[in-house]
Amino acid sequence: MEPKENGKQLGRTLDGPTNPMVTPLLNDLYQFTMAYAYWKAGKHNERSVFDLYFRKNPFGGEYTVFAGLEECIKFLANFKLSDEEIDFVRDCLPGSEEAFCDYLRGLDCSGVEVYAIPEGSVVFPKVPLMRVEGPVGVVQLLETSFLNLVNFASLVATNAARHRFVAGKSKILLEFGARRAQGPDGAISASKYCYLGGFDATSNVAAGKLFGIPLRGTHSHAFVSSFMSTDEIVDKVLHSSDGKTTCEDFVSLVQTWLTKIQYSPSLRGIFSETNHSELVAFTSYALAFPKAFLALVDTYDVMKSGIPNFCAVALALNDFGYKALGIRLDSGDLAYLSTEVRNFFCTVERELKVPGFGEMIITASNDLNEETIDALNKQGHEVDAFGIGTYLVTCYAQAALGCVFKLVEINNQPRIKLSEDVTKVSIPCKKRSYRLYGKEGYPLVDIMTGENEPPPKVGERLLCRHPFNESKRAYVVPQRVEELLKCYWRGNADEAREELPPLNEIRDRCIKQLENMRPDHMRRLNPTPYKVSVSAKLYDFIHFLWLNEAPVGELQ
Amino acid sequence: MEPKENGKQLGRTLDGPTNPMVTPLLNDLYQFTMAYAYWKAGKHNERSVFDLYFRKNPFGGEYTVFAGLEECIKFLANFKLSDEEIDFVRDCLPGSEEAFCDYLRGLDCSGVEVYAIPEGSVVFPKVPLMRVEGPVGVVQLLETSFLNLVNFASLVATNAARHRFVAGKSKILLEFGARRAQGPDGAISASKYCYLGGFDATSNVAAGKLFGIPLRGTHSHAFVSSFMSTDEIVDKVLHSSDGKTTCEDFVSLVQTWLTKIQYSPSLRGIFSETNHSELVAFTSYALAFPKAFLALVDTYDVMKSGIPNFCAVALALNDFGYKALGIRLDSGDLAYLSTEVRNFFCTVERELKVPGFGEMIITASNDLNEETIDALNKQGHEVDAFGIGTYLVTCYAQAALGCVFKLVEINNQPRIKLSEDVTKVSIPCKKRSYRLYGKEGYPLVDIMTGENEPPPKVGERLLCRHPFNESKRAYVVPQRVEELLKCYWRGNADEAREELPPLNEIRDRCIKQLENMRPDHMRRLNPTPYKVSVSAKLYDFIHFLWLNEAPVGELQ
Repeated sequence: MEPKENGKQLGRTLDGPTNPMVTPLLNDLYQFTMAYAYWKAGKHNERSVFDLYFRKNPFGGEYTVFAGLEECIKFLANFKLSDEEIDFVRDCLPGSEEAFCDYLRGLDCSGVEVYAIPEGSVVFPKVPLMRVEGPVGVVQLLETSFLNLVNFASLVATNAARHRFVAGKSKILLEFGARRAQGPDGAISASKYCYLGGFDATSNVAAGKLFGIPLRGTHSHAFVSSFMSTDEIVDKVLHSSDGKTTCEDFVSLVQTWLTKIQYSPSLRGIFSETNHSELVAFTSYALAFPKAFLALVDTYDVMKSGIPNFCAVALALNDFGYKALGIRLDSGDLAYLSTEVRNFFCTVERELKVPGFGEMIITASNDLNEETIDALNKQGHEVDAFGIGTYLVTCYAQAALGCVFKLVEINNQPRIKLSEDVTKVSIPCKKRSYRLYGKEGYPLVDIMTGENEPPPKVGERLLCRHPFNESKRAYVVPQRVEELLKCYWRGNADEAREELPPLNEIRDRCIKQLENMRPDHMRRLNPTPYKVSVSAKLYDFIHFLWLNEAPVGELQ
Repeated sequence: MEPKENGKQLGRTLDGPTNPMVTPLLNDLYQFTMAYAYWKAGKHNERSVFDLYFRKNPFGGEYTVFAGLEECIKFLANFKLSDEEIDFVRDCLPGSEEAFCDYLRGLDCSGVEVYAIPEGSVVFPKVPLMRVEGPVGVVQLLETSFLNLVNFASLVATNAARHRFVAGKSKILLEFGARRAQGPDGAISASKYCYLGGFDATSNVAAGKLFGIPLRGTHSHAFVSSFMSTDEIVDKVLHSSDGKTTCEDFVSLVQTWLTKIQYSPSLRGIFSETNHSELVAFTSYALAFPKAFLALVDTYDVMKSGIPNFCAVALALNDFGYKALGIRLDSGDLAYLSTEVRNFFCTVERELKVPGFGEMIITASNDLNEETIDALNKQGHEVDAFGIGTYLVTCYAQAALGCVFKLVEINNQPRIKLSEDVTKVSIPCKKRSYRLYGKEGYPLVDIMTGENEPPPKVGERLLCRHPFNESKRAYVVPQRVEELLKCYWRGNADEAREELPPLNEIRDRCIKQLENMRPDHMRRLNPTPYKVSVSAKLYDFIHFLWLNEAPVGELQ
């Protein structure tokens, strides 16, 4: 995974995309057949403008988090077909002329400009996330990879944001999806974009290393069932946390505590005999990580075995100055169990006088998603941290976002894509977009205008029109106007473009923007749609062009 | 994407996994914390046996296609932590001893054995797809990547097989999902495993190059709307297919044909005026690919514009010895439109005496999935080829398969994982599995036995028991017995293991096995579950162990 060097040729050095498989061949074949046909017609250098946008927010919601931009720009900066790749493309286009290979050989993105909404922004349907301009032959070759890099990134970041919303700000959210993700890079991208969307940490070590995301993890059921007897623990010594004292036989100490718990009048009756191999596994794990003891307590039976075993080890650690971190539940009724566990911890704190014991972290996992967390909230629970895998990283509730990449102008001529389905009609023209904010500081509406229209002004009344519905329009007096598209790539003109911020900054932007949305847009049930509009002038032009292009029917 | 070299150390050279991001760090952190705890307890070299299996067939069906094995073996063969990776791991495990790094440094899979069902096989719940044996410290580190590599591969291969089943053997199935897939590698793996599951081709150029999958693709709506006037076609010359004659003005010839169609008494009335820019785009595309002219005909209006324009170009090509391939429909009522188009093509064939014109390929795309293809079949349609994207590659109907990796034996001691949910109880012991075939040649039942039980014999009556349901059992007299698990990795003992067959052979196996299933297991609505069983001896042992491990409740 060496960073590619080509980026250097186009100004500041930019590494290639995270995944080395992202090359110009990560492409639909028709982009190359079209490139050839453009070239053959001598049209390949015609200046084109494409908009990348989606038509509908995912997950039944009314917002989306935009992600994937950095990877697109890194791809662009390193866009270069190797000779081997060119040979392959030629073989895919039978009858193509050799000179086309020369054209491909010379191809890079020095003539391309990319304007985009900053990554991590909250975004809405129809408003371009990216506007890509340049010679049609090259820009066409970017379509598939850009869509691929943006679609899943935005989808999973949005999914993470939705999970954060339902879990609440105070909970710890852990992404545990590597094993169930759609392939290796599905896992690594999911880890990256879940963090961007507001998660706190991941279990995915590769993602931790690549992106600096905090890592979390303890042990599995297999670890617990791999132990059978106390004899397996050879080294029973534990040095105290301050290094001053030594416990020569930690195993016996744990056993003593277990007996003490079992015979405590206030705790007795909750369990009779605990699973011994589980106790050995916990003891062994604590000896390996005395400072970070967090145990999975449901291998046999949470309340009858896991919790007393855990407490015995935690109390033994406590004797030598270590605070156990807590437990993880991976099955059963998480609302009930977490509450029972919390009560037990509090009883131990009270009865055995161990300050802080009641506040240990209770982590829950096991096929969690928005709905189950919502249900837990309604039932009442004592979970501090949620470990979420499958439903989060595969976006199980809706596995794809439908971003499209549409030609809106070529040779300064606006183009429209018609469809019998009005939601699929594209908004023509090279455009600008603005977000208008109201008195209370919330965003009110996004508006698209023609490239050369004067921008909306603070305090000035402005007509915002629904792009396709004549009767939907509203006057707005913006208190703040934010231009949405910023330049992230302008060929060689390096100084002109925005920096690509580090992941943490993108994440902060995302969290801030989500918090700044009017609450009714964000709620899970029947959220209010956020308004997306066009200027009166653009509205008129769209409908002029539409009438011009659409065939007139004949009733027969 | 250099193939890794480590594989060589362990016998025959095996390249690394397709995706260079598949490294030992593509792992859950807890695999490393456990490795450390095993090592700290001196248990890391204990011989362990893990089963990789799933619990439920996906998509409401009763079968699954197993895929991903080759990538697992390539990963295994090259498993080696770099110094940089080891440093990172150490930093993730605060308080860990330096000697653990030496252990990690020496780690490889020379002590590991992998037995697996051949890739491309039809498989069923609970039966191990892979049995992984070796030192617990190493095998534990393989869990996450193996699950990641098998889960999505098997899921998407199964999805492809299901789409093939509903479309029928005679249809051409094209995978068009690159832009909507879950990340770059989601796209490339989907292309690979859809082909394995019975698709004919992909649009994904990278997948075509990496795996030798046939490629397909033509042009998009943007190509059509990028043209405006005939003047854009500079070079109007077309040489005939036999090279003997030349058409000096192909553009005029197309126009002549269009007029002829428009004034033909039998065709007239279907359309009045076609979209001119579409005609120019088709003409231009045909000049670039006269041998492979296939046009997207729905940019403006299929019957009023796209089809007459296409036919004009196709007829002009025909004059110079070229056969147009056909069309693609990407919107509207595909049943109705494909039938109308077919009728029109047949009328052209008849009226204008162009043999074969009626048989041109009609391709359909636009959010197709199992349901929509089934609905098309019920309505009647004339589609020859389906281009399927989003729903196929993201496995939209069920975005994850739940393969698990469970410890079944350590130090020759069988282990069971209990759960209050009986479907989650694991089947203990190092096992063998067999597929038993009946008189009609169909597979009847899969049976698992203990490692040392004598294998089932052809013609000998055998009791097959449901692993957890006492009352479900049946006698079987197999006509053929197939042992399912074959050795794919045995450390350094190279000669002993199965070859990894090329993708085409895996695909053939898959198609053959699917065809050989009893039809009632395969149907979409209420399929019959295929039986999975254990031997009487294994049944007894499971239940002995279960009682032994489960805590006895106390009613209070």
